[in-house]
Parts: sequence; structure tokens; C-alpha cells
Amino acid sequence: MKRNLLAVSGALVPLALSAADRPNIIFFLIDDYGWVDSQVCYDGNEYPFNTRFDTPNMLRLASKGAVFSNAYACPLSTPTRTSLMTGVHAAHERITNHTDVLGWVPSDIIGAVDGVAPEGDSDLFTRPDWNYGGLSPVPGVENTFHATPMVQILRDNGYYTIHVGKAHWAGAGTPGSTPNNMGFLRNIAGSSNGQPRSYLGEENFGNTPEKWTYNSVMDMPQYYGKDIFLTEALTQEALKSLDYPIEQGLPFYLYMSHYATHGPITKDKRFYDKYKGRGLDNGQSKYASMVEGVDRSLGEIMDYLDEKGVADNTVIVMYADNGGKCDNLAKGGELHRQNLPLREGKGSCYEGGVREPLIVFWPSHSKAGSRIDIPVSCEDFFPTFMDFAGIGEYTTVQTLDGKSFAPLVEGTGTLPADRPIISHYPHRWKLERFSDIDYLSAVRVGNWKFVYRMENAAQFNGRPGLKAAIDAGAFELYNLSEDLSETRNVAARYPKKTLELLKILSDTLRTWDASMPHVKATGKTLPLPDELL
Amino acid sequence: MKRNLLAVSGALVPLALSAADRPNIIFFLIDDYGWVDSQVCYDGNEYPFNTRFDTPNMLRLASKGAVFSNAYACPLSTPTRTSLMTGVHAAHERITNHTDVLGWVPSDIIGAVDGVAPEGDSDLFTRPDWNYGGLSPVPGVENTFHATPMVQILRDNGYYTIHVGKAHWAGAGTPGSTPNNMGFLRNIAGSSNGQPRSYLGEENFGNTPEKWTYNSVMDMPQYYGKDIFLTEALTQEALKSLDYPIEQGLPFYLYMSHYATHGPITKDKRFYDKYKGRGLDNGQSKYASMVEGVDRSLGEIMDYLDEKGVADNTVIVMYADNGGKCDNLAKGGELHRQNLPLREGKGSCYEGGVREPLIVFWPSHSKAGSRIDIPVSCEDFFPTFMDFAGIGEYTTVQTLDGKSFAPLVEGTGTLPADRPIISHYPHRWKLERFSDIDYLSAVRVGNWKFVYRMENAAQFNGRPGLKAAIDAGAFELYNLSEDLSETRNVAARYPKKTLELLKILSDTLRTWDASMPHVKATGKTLPLPDELL
Repeated sequence: MKRNLLAVSGALVPLALSAADRPNIIFFLIDDYGWVDSQVCYDGNEYPFNTRFDTPNMLRLASKGAVFSNAYACPLSTPTRTSLMTGVHAAHERITNHTDVLGWVPSDIIGAVDGVAPEGDSDLFTRPDWNYGGLSPVPGVENTFHATPMVQILRDNGYYTIHVGKAHWAGAGTPGSTPNNMGFLRNIAGSSNGQPRSYLGEENFGNTPEKWTYNSVMDMPQYYGKDIFLTEALTQEALKSLDYPIEQGLPFYLYMSHYATHGPITKDKRFYDKYKGRGLDNGQSKYASMVEGVDRSLGEIMDYLDEKGVADNTVIVMYADNGGKCDNLAKGGELHRQNLPLREGKGSCYEGGVREPLIVFWPSHSKAGSRIDIPVSCEDFFPTFMDFAGIGEYTTVQTLDGKSFAPLVEGTGTLPADRPIISHYPHRWKLERFSDIDYLSAVRVGNWKFVYRMENAAQFNGRPGLKAAIDAGAFELYNLSEDLSETRNVAARYPKKTLELLKILSDTLRTWDASMPHVKATGKTLPLPDELL
Repeated sequence: MKRNLLAVSGALVPLALSAADRPNIIFFLIDDYGWVDSQVCYDGNEYPFNTRFDTPNMLRLASKGAVFSNAYACPLSTPTRTSLMTGVHAAHERITNHTDVLGWVPSDIIGAVDGVAPEGDSDLFTRPDWNYGGLSPVPGVENTFHATPMVQILRDNGYYTIHVGKAHWAGAGTPGSTPNNMGFLRNIAGSSNGQPRSYLGEENFGNTPEKWTYNSVMDMPQYYGKDIFLTEALTQEALKSLDYPIEQGLPFYLYMSHYATHGPITKDKRFYDKYKGRGLDNGQSKYASMVEGVDRSLGEIMDYLDEKGVADNTVIVMYADNGGKCDNLAKGGELHRQNLPLREGKGSCYEGGVREPLIVFWPSHSKAGSRIDIPVSCEDFFPTFMDFAGIGEYTTVQTLDGKSFAPLVEGTGTLPADRPIISHYPHRWKLERFSDIDYLSAVRVGNWKFVYRMENAAQFNGRPGLKAAIDAGAFELYNLSEDLSETRNVAARYPKKTLELLKILSDTLRTWDASMPHVKATGKTLPLPDELL
């Protein structure tokens, strides 16, 4: 009888030989989760909020591997998640906002415009042209960025690839909206959803008829009516899914992408009472219970790897897709101050929106309990994961912007400390206006950070010059080494540094043909910072 | 670096050695699809309806392999589908009706009783006790039958197992409702759904907000808004899913379980006009277009196997889960006569409800263009598939009722021609009453068939004796060799044969502790046929 392997035409990777040399990789991604939302102190300093949550398993992972003090993501979910898959900066992908339903939009989604939900305009701007379809693994899909997904390459190199939880790379109605088209062999609960309709098994994770939304979590019917939180249900399914590749001796890639700690902020009753008893308000206690639920998940995964005897051959990367949410009353606490010492949160180009927890444990390579201060960003993960997997050569339709930080983890190399880290959000986030979130763009170079406030820039009719732009609040400069909270704008004091950074930002965005909002008054896109001079 | 395979404790099947000897298996299952709904003439006779549909690919498969003239299933979806997975007769599983939502029932489902939707009572009966939770792969789940799923065993023996389409083994809210818990490594669109809310990509396969149901087809968002019929979309996804195991040299099991030709009867516009042009009415043309869509799918799969060079090592089994629907106005034609020459259709224990198309192509084993007349039934597929896969030893928590028909396909052995084939439907199907569907039980032995009409049996107060029961229409006997349409009840003429068969039916149902309806007048379950004597 003909053997399958022999019957296939074309060259094959010699999997039987190489699989043994490939470590498993677990990418543990948390949603809307802030830099100070754990006991891990990423820059070595303990801030007040670090003592709020009990995260013993994150501490455990950090003690085994390396923490990053200056890890960045995009201000929102889809841009980060697509950039992780493409190795291309989100502004270069022209995916700068979150994707949602395409083709039609339920009337109860506020602010929906032309199927681009829920994005609205402002007094000054109409929305930019951008790839609101998100990422596509195939060419020719309108308003999408076409790229070869990182997971596809892992799969093609013998990895058994598993998706669990939130996907959110692309609008419903496009190929990229389902993990099955992104290189994942297994998909549990991943779709175009950006959040779960409900975290509760008792509520069928939202699969109830009262009010339809796309956000009901699919594929978990076996938990309907059960007393279980989604974080725990996803963890159980993830661990079940690992049995097969381990039994078969296949290297696996598990994308453990928790919906938590995204809204709806919901009490995980395993942990809520403890935080309430400590004096946190109801919202804070609910959020804390979601955080500890995620930490527990990480611990259960680590325990499972130990039990199966594969912990020594499994890379674990823990990261978050954007900063903690700071506009959410349901989360309790004080609005816009929930990521202190960092300014603002999700959606913003200030540090609270883009600086992320990142822990990497790479067995036999990372150094236990080490800290890395060189800045890294989400577009760097693609080449880094290739290094973890030992994949030296691969072909992509896109050209990668990111650089591998694997040498940093190993201590065998470095990246420039002054590599520009760009954040770009040329959108209005919600119906409610947030001046420190909407229409911002920023670049960090070394410890300096320049912020372009587009609404302030839009007021000029003509070229105002540097001083006028600074005076009007269009240009800001911060020195993060002495002002982590970005409270002291020193642009007027350091005009040369301001010019240097704004030029880097302008040149890069221009090279990328990055999206910019349309100015209603002129009908043109907003000038880049250097075009104001 | 430790190799996964070596790191796992416990015995492993030596996959690397055995995989090469294992053929791929494709189980192509069609829904609500009748015995005469193709050009294949299963018993060698061409009936009028055989010329109605163009099914060139079923003819192509039949010419390569063996057709069965006397293949049986249960009268409804879930009983057949669970029996296929367990090797146990559905009446022995006590799964005799279709499963649906558990835990809560939307108010717009008519006739819902205690979470058992949509089953009602009759004037004479209240519903029987049965496992309305369906099949469970784990013990301890209320109102389920616990068994080791066939697919789990294939998986544990190295098969890469893929589910595409309709699952419908278990109620939402139980572990068995998702293919992920049944041994499938990959799941595309399978859930507790018994039907799709929409077949149309343009309608997002039902994922639209106007009217919520469980039946929106999950996991296919990449086709939303597209001009594509679900049958074709599932086929495309199925073929994509085969690339991986073929590339990796893993034997695969593809459960290609089409939602078609189940309602909602929907025009597949690729084929509709042709049938309309031939003079079929609108409903008939729509149904015909769905049938040809399924046939096209089969052809595309066969073409794919040829292209990949694996056709000579891939078993294909084509089968349907119950008889064609005969109560559906949307299907056009004449109600209750849509499976002629067979009597009745889906739901019924008459031949139209339970006699099924079955084609088996087993490369290097089956004989091209052969026909097999020995009766086989859905509980026989489990041991048969083990033979296809060359799995000699396996452990199940259940004891199998079925027998392998692999020797019949090979011509190396047989099964008794007079093995009893039992059909059992102790339920009321719908709010509308169907006297030739509801509350029937039957056994075929050789060419004889006994039918127990429970409603007629319920009228007796005491033990009526054989003649009275026959006179009252409680007992019927047919000789299928001369009366395939079951129009001539010969029970009074052959009382000994009637007694012989009713005894076999009674003894078997008693041994199985099969579900029987509760008689309102007595408060007891309805007596078995021999208990009336």
C-alpha cells in the first residue's frame, strides 16, 4: 500500500529529523492587561499597583526566565495581534485600529461608519484610510494587509499549531478572521471576536438569545450552564489539546490567547472575595479576580508541562496586547490613573497604552531571573520566534520590520538601545472623546519620547514653525529616564531633540505610507510633524 | 535538548512504523438524504426518482467500489450519528430522538418539554425516558450514554482526525456536543447544531441578528457576505484541512458530514435552473440543487485525492443518516411519497425512513462495481472502520452490538442474511401528528419485516392476543422481497412468522432496556409486543 509520505510530490522538510531539535513554544497573551498589573516589577521598581494583585505564577515564570522593562505593543488589540503575525509594524500594515464586523453592522453598534465599526469622526477629522479588514493570508481581499502569517511558517516547519481564545486579526467576512486560515491546525474559540459576550459558563459564554452580538464565544458548548469562568475553560481545553502533539512527539506551538482581562469586567468568584476583603472596591476586586484567573492559568500550564516532562523543552512567552484599560468605570478605581506610574492606558500612545509586561523563558538559553532593558516591540516577535524554533530560512510575501530579540534573551547579542519605537493611533476610539488617547502618534528614541498631538496640529492653516507648534501643544517631548509618567513636556527646552525625533517619526511614517486622518477644513490628510515646519 | 517523544511516560503505539500501513478514511455522510435520491440504483432496479437527480460522482464512486442494497440507519439524525460513534444500537444507547439545546429552551421552540426540545406528548402517551443528552465521551453526565467514541480510537492509533460539518451527537451543554471531545483533532463547523440556520454565505450562514437560534453555523466567518453555498464552503475547508496530514505522512480520518440536504431547503444556484428547466416544481428543484451540490462535493474530494496521489490509499464511505424527509412542503413534490418505492421517510420505521444509500470504496480490497445484498446497519460501522484501519485491538467502555462488514466488502466473509435489523422510534416527532412516523418500532429478519404500531397497541386494556392485536393494527408484517413498499400487511396470513419476529423484537428491546412511551391511561410504559399476548 502506498505510503502517504511517498505519494506526495514536491520537496518536504525532513520533519522526522528536525522535530527533535525544535522546542515547543507557548505564547501566553493577555488582553488589555497593564504593565503594573502584577507582582512582577518589570523595571526593578515596585510601584503601588504591583502589590494589588497576587500573581505567584508570573513571579515563578519571571524567576525562571527574563523580564523586559521596555517591551512595547500597539495601543489596541488588532494592530498588535496582526503585527505579531507579520513582523511588520502596524502603521506599516496600515492596520491601526481594531477590526470588527464587515459587510453589515448591527444598528445597536454606536458610531458605525460604512461597515467600519465602531469608528466615528471628530469635529476636526474624518477617519483615515486604513486596512479596516485587518490581516489577510491571501491576496486580493479589499482593505486588508496581505502577509504570510508567522504561524503558517511554524506549521510548515513541522509545528503542531494550536489556537486557543481570542484571534481578532481581521474583520468577519475575510479569510483572516478564522485561525484555520492563519496556519493553525487546531482552533478553540477563536474568531473575529474582539471580546467575549460573557465570561460565564452559566451564561453559555454569551450564547443566549436575549441580545445577539458577534461576541458570543463559539466552540465551547460543553461548558454551557456550568459554573466555570472562561479563563479556566480555555485553559482546560488548551491542556487537552497538548496531549496529542506530546504523544506524537510533534513540536507544538500553543497560542494561549486569553480573552481576559478584557471587558466585560466580570467577577471570577474563585478570587473576588479575597480582594474585596482587602478593601478594593467592587470594580477593582472584579478586575483583580480576572487577573489572578489568568495567573492561575499560567500556573496550570506550567504544572502540566512539568507533569508531562516537557517543561525543559518548552519556551514560554508572556505578553499583553496593549495597555490596561483606563476609561472603564466597571474596572473601579480612578479613571485614567489605573496604570500609574504610566500615563493613560489602552488606546493611547502614552506609556500606559503601549508599555507591556513581557517575560521570556527559553530553556537552556535564557538566564534565570534576568532583566533586559533594551526596548523591543510587537513586530520583533516574528523573527524572535523563528530563532526559538531554529528556523533559519523562510519566505514571506512581506518584508519584516522587526528584529529578533532572541540574542538579548541568550545574552549573545543586542539591539540598538536607541532604535526608534513608534506608536501611531490616527483614530477616534469611541463616541466619548479622550484627548490623551485619540489622534496621537509618538516615537521613543533611547530615553526620549516625542508625541504628536494631531488635533492640536490640525488648528494651523499654513506652516507654524517649531515654536508655535510646541506652544499649541502639537509637539511634546518627554525624558522617560527621569519622567516615566510623561508629566513634564520639555519640547520647548530641547528643541533640537524635538526636531530630531519628529524627523524620525515623520520619515518613518512617510516611508510606510502610514494612515493619517483627513482634516475636514482642508479635505487633505493631516501633515506629518515635519511638514508643519 | 529533550525530544518530546522520549519525554512522555507510558506506552505509545509505534506510530512511525504503523502509519504507513494505515489507509486514509473519508466518511462522506449526507443528511436527510433518501435511498432513491441519486442515479445509483442500490438494489439494481431503476425507480422513477433515480432519474431525477444528476449524481455523476456517486456513480463514479459506485463504479470503483461496492454498493449496498440493504443498508440501514435509524429514523433520525442523532440516533444514527451516535450509533456510528459507539457501535451500539441506538435503542440500546437509549438515544432514540434528536438532541437539542439543554438547560434552557428559547420560547419560540414549539413543544419544548423540560429542556427536551422539541419533543411533545400525544393524547395517549407522555414521552419516554431516554438519554436526551445524547452521547458523552466522559462518565457522569446526566441523561447521556457514556461510550468511547470510535474517532478517539482512530486518533489514539495515529490517525489525524478531522471533523467538517454537522456533529449533532449531544445536547448543548454536554461534553459530547463538540467534536473536540470526541477524538477529533480538527473541528470545522461542528457543534450541537442539527441543521444550519442558513446555507448561504450571503447570509453569513445564519450569523445575523434578526432572529437568534443555535443553528447559525460557527467557524466559517471567512465566507460571510460571499456568494457561496455552505456545501461548497465546507468542501473547500475540508480539502484545505487535508494538506497537513498528507504533507506529514499521517493517515487521516475525514468525517465529511454535510449539513445538506437537511432543511432549510435552499436553492443552490449552481444547479437550480437546470432542474427547473426540466419541469420540476420550485421545491423539487431546490432540493435537487442541494443533492447535486453534495454530489459535486464528493467529486471535488475524489479529484483532490487523485491530484495528491493518495486516492489508492484512501477508503471512501458514502452514507446518509436517515431517510429523505417526506413531510416537508418546502421540498416540493407530493408529501409522504418522496421516497417511493419506499414507504414514508425520515422519522419513520418504514423503509423510507431507515433504508440508506451506502457505497464503500476500499482500495485493493473492494470489488469495482459490486453489489452487496446482506443487510447492514449503522452500529456496524465502528468495527468495520477498525478493520479498514487495521486496528486489531482496542478498548471501549461499551460493548459493541455491531459487526464488521469489511469481509463483505472484500468478499472474504459474510454476515447472516437473517440478522435482525431493528428500528425503534418511541416518540412523537413534531407538533403535527404523523401516524406512519410517530411511535413505531420494527424488526427486519431476512425479507420479513414486523412493525409495532404503539398507538394502536395502547388502546388495549389487558392482553388482547395475537389476532386482536393484528386486527387493531398494532402488529403488521410485510414481505419485503415482494412488497418493498410495505403496502400489504400479511400479519393475519402469517401468524407464526409474525409471532417469531415480534418475539425477536420484544426480547431484544427488553435486553437493551429500550425506552418506551408512558401510557397516560395506566401510568406505565407501553408493553412490548409479546407482553400484549
